[in-house]
Order: sequence, then structure tokens, then C-alpha cells
Amino acid sequence: MQRPGFNDILDAAARIAPHARVTPVLRETELDSLCGAELHFKCEQLQRGGAFKFRGACNAVWALDPTEAAHGVLTHSSGNHGAALALAALSRGIPAHVVVPDGALRSKIDLIQRAGATLHRCAPTLAAREQGCARLQSELGLTLVHPYEDPSVIAGQGTAALELLHFVGGLDALVVPVGGGGLAAGTALTLAAIAPQCQLVLAEPAGADDAARSLASGHRVTELRPQTICDGLRAGIGVPNFDILRNGRTDVITVDDDDVRQAMRLLWRHLKQVVEPSSATVLAAVLSLPQRFAGKRVGLILSGGNVDLDSIAFCARCGDR
Amino acid sequence: MQRPGFNDILDAAARIAPHARVTPVLRETELDSLCGAELHFKCEQLQRGGAFKFRGACNAVWALDPTEAAHGVLTHSSGNHGAALALAALSRGIPAHVVVPDGALRSKIDLIQRAGATLHRCAPTLAAREQGCARLQSELGLTLVHPYEDPSVIAGQGTAALELLHFVGGLDALVVPVGGGGLAAGTALTLAAIAPQCQLVLAEPAGADDAARSLASGHRVTELRPQTICDGLRAGIGVPNFDILRNGRTDVITVDDDDVRQAMRLLWRHLKQVVEPSSATVLAAVLSLPQRFAGKRVGLILSGGNVDLDSIAFCARCGDR
Repeated sequence: MQRPGFNDILDAAARIAPHARVTPVLRETELDSLCGAELHFKCEQLQRGGAFKFRGACNAVWALDPTEAAHGVLTHSSGNHGAALALAALSRGIPAHVVVPDGALRSKIDLIQRAGATLHRCAPTLAAREQGCARLQSELGLTLVHPYEDPSVIAGQGTAALELLHFVGGLDALVVPVGGGGLAAGTALTLAAIAPQCQLVLAEPAGADDAARSLASGHRVTELRPQTICDGLRAGIGVPNFDILRNGRTDVITVDDDDVRQAMRLLWRHLKQVVEPSSATVLAAVLSLPQRFAGKRVGLILSGGNVDLDSIAFCARCGDR
Repeated sequence: MQRPGFNDILDAAARIAPHARVTPVLRETELDSLCGAELHFKCEQLQRGGAFKFRGACNAVWALDPTEAAHGVLTHSSGNHGAALALAALSRGIPAHVVVPDGALRSKIDLIQRAGATLHRCAPTLAAREQGCARLQSELGLTLVHPYEDPSVIAGQGTAALELLHFVGGLDALVVPVGGGGLAAGTALTLAAIAPQCQLVLAEPAGADDAARSLASGHRVTELRPQTICDGLRAGIGVPNFDILRNGRTDVITVDDDDVRQAMRLLWRHLKQVVEPSSATVLAAVLSLPQRFAGKRVGLILSGGNVDLDSIAFCARCGDR
């Protein structure tokens, strides 16, 4: 599989500019005090589709030649990438098909449907997802856009760090969540090219810590049974993703689900942002090793905000006292 | 009471610039489609202290001469203004005292305390609040900063519209919530000076509709028994506030609590922002009269986001499936 470079990230930035949002960077002095560091939160939960995934999907869709594009695109996704691909296809006026495993969050499925994609349900296993995709690909001539291994997707995800660095200037460290590794690999390429002094730190759920084990051992760990509330980070690290990350100066910090819940509360209390558990891993990582980040300028990418609305009770009770 | 002018708003913008945030403006095409209008949301829930109130309080605190300032400042507030004044006083290193009526939201009281202000509890009546203030004023030589009648506060609140107009350019209408009328009056002064073609629309809870009745009758209605979930909008319209608004081309749209709850859900679903009920009145107002706003460029000021964390159940359940 072709490995993207920094030029691909610059191309992606230009390609997605008419469609993607330049998301805000938020700060909060109370959170800084709590961590003893200067924290800059890149708010990708405010990206179109509610997650950074739109960057990669949009880049992939608009990079297709017109003939390929006309047939439509396809992916399997438990959520954010599916919605992102659906929105990206909508922006180009081409069909999108999404294979969704049973058990995906309703908020994420809603997004896919509202963007006009065709939904195909399957059993919640990787084999079922891939089988569903293979069938649709051969039947309809669709182009598969892999959620994190596609080079155009990796390049698109690298634009988030590019924007953040342009906005805040130099950073000592940049913390991003890692699941399949699309955002992690794209960020690594951006940092290597324009901010080599900035340490890349990956935040990973302890219950799905294959990236940590892979980077520690030097071999891509493929056996995993993810057990975490971070539904966006249950995928194992991809092949090109591992290849890009193993060559970098990359650290992984693993965090457990209770730390993630606590970080979600802090992000709400101080930053006024409700994010999905996957996003909160980055703050949980910084809080777990305060001495490591003390006095540093730290960027954190909040990756997505697609929490199920109905698991939030505020409409029933808040303000009613 | 002195009436502020547009020059005071420009002065306020310069005075608060080192302390206040330039808040982001968010848009979402799905909300636009729903309303048939182009909506630009000025996110004052992301202002320091979680509400636009910091603008006015900060302007008032930094406008004091050094001798006055050294004694400290005082206000009565059920929440956002108290927290804003506490933060503003902290920014100048002077004492702040806040008289808080029983029944105020815990999230708002927490904010006041975290900013280091001295809290004084009182009965939840205007008389008790004013009595508490009068006693503290005479005992401690504090300067009272009224939540919405103080001219410096009104001028400070006018800077939110100034920023929004600078960012988005021309608007056909600007919708802001109205309670005591600090934001409404400040916005009216800004629009009159730099965007006279832009219609000012006030969103008011039907259960606290004294501004609507005051502007309709030409006389300030002072008898009111507010009954609404919009805890930030229960105050009656102030004297200078009414005076400024009655001379303008100002409309009021009243909305009921169910519409407000529905608007909160929509803001969460589409804009990923959890706002307090008072903030959601602006979207509820636009949704209640779609033909009025059809095809227009509309600004909406989301006034605050201090919802009680514990009335939001997401930490217990979200992501747990």
C-alpha cells in the first residue's frame, strides 16, 4: 500500500478547504492550572459530521477521478468514518454505501442516513464487515475508502495538526487518540515535516492497547479483544499506520475507562464541550502523567463529539429547578 | 442613570480585549436547512465564565479608578453575572462579593467560588438581594456593579454584536435573549451605530414576558412572576435598558419552555453545543416564525452554557453500550 508523504497532506489541505471547517482551538485557564501545562484543544468534534474523519473522507472522495467517482464509494464503519464518507460523497454528488455493524451508536447511524448514504447492516465482526464490502464492491463497482489505511485518508487526517500548528505556533507535544491510526499517522507525517521538535503522544484505551504493544515490541499486534467505552478506538492499528508510526519518535500513553469518564466531565465543566469518550482520552493521558507535561505547551486533538443524545438526560431535567 | 453610547462600546472593546475571549461563530448546514435561513451562532457560552456576562463585568471592573477598585466590587446575581464579576475582579486583583439568592444553580455558584469571590446567601427575592447589597456596600465601601442597568455593563455587552458583525459581515437580523436587558440594550446600541439595516429581535420566555409587554405598551411593566426554565431570563427589564430599546426598531418573540427544550436538543444534535435554556430561546424564536426569517442571514447570540453538570447523565451512561 502506497505511503503518503507531507506533500499529500498539503494537497489534501487544498482539496478539502472548500468543504471542511477550520475548527476552533479552545483554551481554559482552569484546565491549565489543573494540569500545570498550557493546553490547546483543537475542536474536531466541531468538524462536519462531528469528527476529524471528514478530513480524510473528503480528501479521498475528491481525489477520485470522475469515472471512479461516478460509481460511488463504500466503506465499513461503526460510525464516524461512515458519516464522514457519506457527507463527503454528498459534497461531490456521488453515491455512498456504508456497511454498519450491529451495535453501532444510533447518533452515528443517524448521521450516515441524514447524509443520504445507503446503509447495509452486518454482524459486528471484522470478517462480516469485509465480506459485506467485498460483495457490494463487485456488484456495484464501488471504490472502497478504508477508514484508516487508505493513503488519502491518512493524508486528510494530517491536515488537523497542520491547522493547529498554524494557529498556535510551536508546541512541545501533540496528543491524539489512536485506534486504527489514521489520525496518528497523518499527524506524525505533519510533525516530522514542519515541527520535528514537537513530541507526538498517542492516547490509547488500556482495553484496546494494541498500538502501545505494537510500538513497544516492534511488531504489529493483530490479536485484540477490545474492551473499552471508547467506541471510536476499538480498531486495531493498520498496516501503513504502524509503518509510519514505528519510524517516528512516538510515545503511547494508555488510559483506563474511568480516567476517560473523568476527563469527559472535566472537558464539559471547563471547556463546555461534550465529546465522545474517544476524544477524552487525550486529556486523560495528560492528567495521568502530569510531571511529563509540566510547563509545556501541549496541543490536544478532540477527535469527535458524536455521543448519543438520548444518553444525555439534560432535556428532561436541566433548568427545571 | 447615565445612558451609554456607541463610543462606550468601542472603549469597552479595547478595555476588555486583554481579558475576554473572541468567541467562535459556528454554523451548521443542517440547522440552516431546518430553518430555511442562514444562521450564524455567536458562542458566548465559550466566553470566560461560560456566558457573555464577562464582557460587561470586565468592562465595569477595569473602568473603576484605582481607589474605588481597591475597595472591591459587589453584585447580586443568581449566577452568570456573579461569576463574571468574580472573574473580572480576579483579573484586576481586587475583592469581589456576590449576594446569591437561595435556589441558584450549583454550577453557577461553583464558578463564583472558584473565582475566589466571597459568597453571601439570601432569600430568593429582589428585596432580600437589594437589602444584602446595601448592607455590604455601606459596611465595606464596595462598588455595586448592577447585572444589567450599569452603563459600563451595557456597553460591555454591546461588544458581542460588534465582534459578530466584524466576523460575519452584514446580517438581516440579530436575535438575542432578553431578561434584564443588558445584552439587548448593548446590542441595540451597536446595531444602531454600525448596522442600522439589521433588525434586532429579542427572544423572551413566554413565562417572563415583561419586555414584550413593556415594548408593546410603551410603559415598563414591573409586575412579573417569572415562570420559566430559563433561569438567566427571570429578571424584569431594567430602566435604562427599556429606555434604549423603546427607541429602537426592536421586536420581541416569546417562546414557551417546550420550544426552548426542543431548541436545546437541536443545538446539541447539530451544533454540538450544550447551552443553558436561556441561550436556546434564540433558536426557538427563529423556529417559531420560519416565514419571518426565510432566506435571511441571521445572527444568534448563544448567551451562556452553565448547565448543571449533574443534571447531565452522560458520564454514567454514554459510550457504555
